Amino acid sequence: MIQATIITIGDELLIGQVIDTNSAWMAQELNKAGIRVVRRVAVGDVWDEIWNALDEESKHAQIILITGGLGPTADDITKPLLCKYFGGKLVVDEGAKQNVINIFTKLKRPMIERNLLQAEVPDVCTAIQNKRGTAPGMFFNKDGKIFVSMPGVPHEMKGMMEDDVIPHLTKQFKLPVIIHRTLFTAGVGESFLADLIQDFEEALPPQIKLAYLPNYGMVRLRLTSSGFDKIQIEKDIEIQFTQLQLLVKDYLVTNVDEPMERVVGKLLLQKNKTMCTAESCTGGYIAHLLTSIPGSSEFYDGSVVSYSYGAKEDLLNVNHQTLLTKGAVSEEVVTEMAKGALQNIKSNYVIAVSGIMGPGGGLPEKPVGTAWIAVGSKEKIAAQKVFFRFDRARNIQLTAVTALNLLRQFILQNT
Amino acid sequence: MIQATIITIGDELLIGQVIDTNSAWMAQELNKAGIRVVRRVAVGDVWDEIWNALDEESKHAQIILITGGLGPTADDITKPLLCKYFGGKLVVDEGAKQNVINIFTKLKRPMIERNLLQAEVPDVCTAIQNKRGTAPGMFFNKDGKIFVSMPGVPHEMKGMMEDDVIPHLTKQFKLPVIIHRTLFTAGVGESFLADLIQDFEEALPPQIKLAYLPNYGMVRLRLTSSGFDKIQIEKDIEIQFTQLQLLVKDYLVTNVDEPMERVVGKLLLQKNKTMCTAESCTGGYIAHLLTSIPGSSEFYDGSVVSYSYGAKEDLLNVNHQTLLTKGAVSEEVVTEMAKGALQNIKSNYVIAVSGIMGPGGGLPEKPVGTAWIAVGSKEKIAAQKVFFRFDRARNIQLTAVTALNLLRQFILQNT
Repeated sequence: MIQATIITIGDELLIGQVIDTNSAWMAQELNKAGIRVVRRVAVGDVWDEIWNALDEESKHAQIILITGGLGPTADDITKPLLCKYFGGKLVVDEGAKQNVINIFTKLKRPMIERNLLQAEVPDVCTAIQNKRGTAPGMFFNKDGKIFVSMPGVPHEMKGMMEDDVIPHLTKQFKLPVIIHRTLFTAGVGESFLADLIQDFEEALPPQIKLAYLPNYGMVRLRLTSSGFDKIQIEKDIEIQFTQLQLLVKDYLVTNVDEPMERVVGKLLLQKNKTMCTAESCTGGYIAHLLTSIPGSSEFYDGSVVSYSYGAKEDLLNVNHQTLLTKGAVSEEVVTEMAKGALQNIKSNYVIAVSGIMGPGGGLPEKPVGTAWIAVGSKEKIAAQKVFFRFDRARNIQLTAVTALNLLRQFILQNT
Repeated sequence: MIQATIITIGDELLIGQVIDTNSAWMAQELNKAGIRVVRRVAVGDVWDEIWNALDEESKHAQIILITGGLGPTADDITKPLLCKYFGGKLVVDEGAKQNVINIFTKLKRPMIERNLLQAEVPDVCTAIQNKRGTAPGMFFNKDGKIFVSMPGVPHEMKGMMEDDVIPHLTKQFKLPVIIHRTLFTAGVGESFLADLIQDFEEALPPQIKLAYLPNYGMVRLRLTSSGFDKIQIEKDIEIQFTQLQLLVKDYLVTNVDEPMERVVGKLLLQKNKTMCTAESCTGGYIAHLLTSIPGSSEFYDGSVVSYSYGAKEDLLNVNHQTLLTKGAVSEEVVTEMAKGALQNIKSNYVIAVSGIMGPGGGLPEKPVGTAWIAVGSKEKIAAQKVFFRFDRARNIQLTAVTALNLLRQFILQNT
């Protein structure tokens, strides 16, 4: 099987100032194309370390993809290094030059010398045109290995991968099919699942691999297989995947690789219903998850993020007296929030949450991580208390996903 | 200088199903402690590849940190491998065993055989107790190098790093001080900045490094220096940093490493004012950014996420006629949204946004990426059209950060 390795370049990765999202995306695309990523490595903007990474990574794979280190500023040493590594000299690429000029003309911004330098590439590479930025990409060949250098700006890299790199690699190599089937469970731990499906796992044919991927209160189970006979592989994996779904059916959320908000969105679309949210402690995060889905206006009407008492009263009709006697984090308030949102936003379903996400604000009887979640419809509201013991960001995420799952269960049980 | 390398283990990293946030966090902590991270590498759950990574990475650094591959399920091979690599045999660690028992007792969940296996560690390591989960960490020594293995679950790894790993490394090595000073600019491109500060950059003393970090419409400029004389280094970097701030003062957002929402939050706290938001196209993302800050209820009152026309009319008093004649994405509607939010949420300042984030919904005169942003107070509302040409997620992020920056400027100019 054809193997690839990914090198990301940039000091910002090694001091942790930036989270590397490029590698994950690239790995997905390579995988879809039937190329196995065997390693990913990040190195700093340091000559010897980049050089050394090129040497080492080419021992591990036939394809070496490189991102980063191609910006217009002086901390970039990647291009001269590549030029030397592959034994060429820098020359202006006419296509890249025209591209830089076009971009600056379109943006009506003054072009400076530094911008035109972007159009230079080593004469031993094939330039890749950048439709989204000024820095061109580069294909190199050395000792039968393919090296591809791309800018680190995510949307520029993505454009090049889709338009040029993947099509080029697909033409160059005879690539197998890699098939993943993933299901999501919620409300059950990894160990418990492992016990539940132990016999299944032990009986799996050797070419099918099972992986457990726990994340944010959900555990994903993924089956993977690969080979050249696509139809046979699909058939084999389908048999196992069907069995697996049956085994975990009590905890099954979805049998495709999609987040909880998409599951809820699809369910609403299918029933031709809409929902709204009233968020206190999750502060708009549930709204953000739902509206990250293209076309979410079809099933999502909006939210009131009621951080202050005033917002809870004025926009969600929460009774002032309830707030004073029960406190904002209570079954009564979250139920009133849900009713108020349904009344004011006029949706079929609602999620309301109120809690204490930390680090401050905890009380003896309501410690940090406590949240009340209400889900329901005009006919019925069901409230539940949850408790997570993590940091603010994770408490918000877990509360949001749990709330979405509770609404999902409510819709399934009440229609 | 003491060098470290980070190995993350897991097939999910190589098929791109999971974004590696652990490495960035670990790199930050190591950096703060004066340890330079020279490389980060990710490998799959494959015996030879993990073994090979241990061999190779130990050539690059004195400290090798490993995360992942320690869960309770069958796809984990890391522990037996480490046992063989360092020449030991698995034995039960009594502390780890008691920890597993305590966790299950506390959670009132049945414990299974598999969970107790978590308490086994190679007899050639020093076990690290896991206060947040069942899998213990491990310290190994080999040929003068320190290897540390930790679980991949972020909050478990973080706890171990803070409580055990960093204190241990700080005791073991004489570590230098690494100092970063970072400022954020907005509204100006990387190339333009580079030209603006070219003389400054060329005159920098050799021990001070400058880096450009463009991200979401803001460019960060970072100065870095390190050594053993903390006071001298701080003094030297301060002189340069002061100069740099002066050079970019027209575009300066903040001179500490913090995101735009924190800058706005601090400004409001300082003026003892509050704000609210009315979000259509950003769908709660601005609210989420603001409420991710602990204590944000001090300056943030809430939001109306008005995805539907109904929500715009009922919760933000937007005129039905304005929506019909001007369309939701218009100066008039976004101005009415801002006024409505101020009226209903009763804050001092407001941000309102309405736009088309894509991929669908574009019109010839309002293409995907168009958004109207209004910022202001009861006295004055200022609206502005912006245009971004990226994917949905990036358009939402850029619109949100731009809106926050516009409010920041408004507050500075109107008080």
